[in-house]
Amino acid sequence: MKSFNAQIVLEVLQSNLSKDSDEFISLHEPLFAGNEWEYVKECLDTGWVSSVGKFVDRFENDLAKYTGVKRAIAVVNGTAALHICLKLIGIEIGDEVLIPTMTFVATANAVSYCGAIPHFVDIEEKTLGIDPHKLGNYLDSIAEIKPEGCWNRQTGRWIKAIIPVHTFGHPVDLDALEEICKHFKLTMIEDAAESLGSFYKGEHTGNRGRVSAVSFNGNKILTTGGGGAILTQDDTLANLAKHITTTAKLPHKWAFNHDQVGYNYRMPNLNAAVGCAQLEQLPELLIKKRKLANKYTEVFQEVEGLKFFIEPDFAQSNYWLNILLLDEDYAEQRDQLLELTNQNGIMTRPVWTSMHQLPMFKDFPRMDLSMAESLAARMINIPSSAKLSN
Amino acid sequence: MKSFNAQIVLEVLQSNLSKDSDEFISLHEPLFAGNEWEYVKECLDTGWVSSVGKFVDRFENDLAKYTGVKRAIAVVNGTAALHICLKLIGIEIGDEVLIPTMTFVATANAVSYCGAIPHFVDIEEKTLGIDPHKLGNYLDSIAEIKPEGCWNRQTGRWIKAIIPVHTFGHPVDLDALEEICKHFKLTMIEDAAESLGSFYKGEHTGNRGRVSAVSFNGNKILTTGGGGAILTQDDTLANLAKHITTTAKLPHKWAFNHDQVGYNYRMPNLNAAVGCAQLEQLPELLIKKRKLANKYTEVFQEVEGLKFFIEPDFAQSNYWLNILLLDEDYAEQRDQLLELTNQNGIMTRPVWTSMHQLPMFKDFPRMDLSMAESLAARMINIPSSAKLSN
Repeated sequence: MKSFNAQIVLEVLQSNLSKDSDEFISLHEPLFAGNEWEYVKECLDTGWVSSVGKFVDRFENDLAKYTGVKRAIAVVNGTAALHICLKLIGIEIGDEVLIPTMTFVATANAVSYCGAIPHFVDIEEKTLGIDPHKLGNYLDSIAEIKPEGCWNRQTGRWIKAIIPVHTFGHPVDLDALEEICKHFKLTMIEDAAESLGSFYKGEHTGNRGRVSAVSFNGNKILTTGGGGAILTQDDTLANLAKHITTTAKLPHKWAFNHDQVGYNYRMPNLNAAVGCAQLEQLPELLIKKRKLANKYTEVFQEVEGLKFFIEPDFAQSNYWLNILLLDEDYAEQRDQLLELTNQNGIMTRPVWTSMHQLPMFKDFPRMDLSMAESLAARMINIPSSAKLSN
Repeated sequence: MKSFNAQIVLEVLQSNLSKDSDEFISLHEPLFAGNEWEYVKECLDTGWVSSVGKFVDRFENDLAKYTGVKRAIAVVNGTAALHICLKLIGIEIGDEVLIPTMTFVATANAVSYCGAIPHFVDIEEKTLGIDPHKLGNYLDSIAEIKPEGCWNRQTGRWIKAIIPVHTFGHPVDLDALEEICKHFKLTMIEDAAESLGSFYKGEHTGNRGRVSAVSFNGNKILTTGGGGAILTQDDTLANLAKHITTTAKLPHKWAFNHDQVGYNYRMPNLNAAVGCAQLEQLPELLIKKRKLANKYTEVFQEVEGLKFFIEPDFAQSNYWLNILLLDEDYAEQRDQLLELTNQNGIMTRPVWTSMHQLPMFKDFPRMDLSMAESLAARMINIPSSAKLSN
């Protein structure tokens, strides 16, 4: 065993990632090895590049089939998907929505777009997602369960929903969170932006939320350039999602009538064409990602003072972004490690700044966030592209 | 001269649009005759399809150069561009924004996204855009000019801004509207969604607004699949636009810090690649569109009881969607004409339902809208694709 220091970690990465001297290994690159060109060319040749077209329908069908939900609705990105999910379950101005403080800013922004209040909750080390046990105790102490829902006695507002995030692709403990939702009358939205290809107890993430959000941004396991989707088992919500993401226009042979304020969130056919080709390759991408994660697991076992983060025992993760977790004793060497690796052409990154520490969210309600703060200080993402498995 | 009836109009269209028996001539189709495929392939080959990439920068630069503004910021669509324009000029909850009642729903929706109030104004027949004279009289009667701005005495709210729309590509009278803005302390946003390639007194539309919005939806003169842009002469606003459309992330070598609630509105590189190729062809597209409009002008001069709408004398229009304007006597035959032409494979369409008639906007403030109502009952869009000029 070698003891942790930045140089050792750099050497382990260098000896396991084959790299030209002037190459910069990024955190996550897309891989276009399938029918992307063919499908995109078909869009350009036929002129169907925009809001209607066969690839949008096909992508939605393929995605629903792959994830096991009844319906998928393609949109411009994961942020838009989250925004619409909140609208679909009726989140209104002044409602509180529970979200983990460790997440990409889109989760909190989407809540803000509705005029609602993000209420920050802590995470657990096992999943890097919401800690159900700690959350239950917290809600017991601040909330009153009324016939209409969950009342926050401290703020005098309704807590309406919870958005668990499958952080870096690792599923949270959905069974335990469902118990919390039932007990406290909360609606669950899964933020599955990072977890396409990740399964919880054999079921694809995004199946437990009343509605769920996926992302196909360029850094994700599968990309459409920019893109996202709403997943749901509920036909009524799916139809509503399609309606309000396409300007809420009522069907008519020529008249332009809209029955509510809608959004222009539909995914263009051009991007859906790329998505169809990418989705065909997802099983293969997942094998490559797992192979890389297995390699990391093995080589970092030789280093004392850190651990390579492994999927929870109930989950099969897509290992979207791989994670090193430093022991608390070494947390203060994190930035040195970031400096050294990036200087040497190997991209590494800390986790996002916690939401409760951002200026626009700092005065919003929160529980004790000590575990999230501890983990955020010790986590580092390391290169995770599928091509690195070779 | 022939007198108006639906059959006559159908025959004029049929004899001037060469058409196979089973072909359906749509209102507007994109034309991909340039470097679209080459640029898109470059994106796929290099892996740069998403939020960063050289085509986004190039498209923004090319667009600024073409339109004559200092800066252009590419976004996911015209609706997003309008939303950000309103944010940039500081529109807040409860502010009133003047918009023509005859517009696509995005203009009113964008105002709603800010929690602001669309206030509907009338249009003039000469431009199909806001009637400056009528608006001036109306504001004289309801508004009080205070040191802080324009106070609506009737509603007890501030009227902050005005969004003229260059309807179907025809420029409104910007000089006259600028006078109104100066007098009543209003900020102007140009909704140039439909007017790329349209000039007002020799200057491209979108130059007079403090900020302006353009669209590259699939039905527009130029398309990126889905896309839009914000135009402005102001570097500070341009930088802010870029910042808040890209999640308001602060530059840092690795940390994720965001200084305000931002949006995920950036145009993917894949779509910008199509935009670069399309923009190269815009001058040629404009020639084709004008040729088709000239043909329509000529052939419809033979029909009494309608007129083909021609650009205002101060403008050079892109003739995005061509318009037939029926005389009031024939307004009631509009739907018959729509039925007959669509049944015969020639797509025609009435103008959008006026905003003040939609359920979600019907209780918002408005002036007398008699001209808009009269025109809406008599307008028909006819096929306008560039390829039809052949």
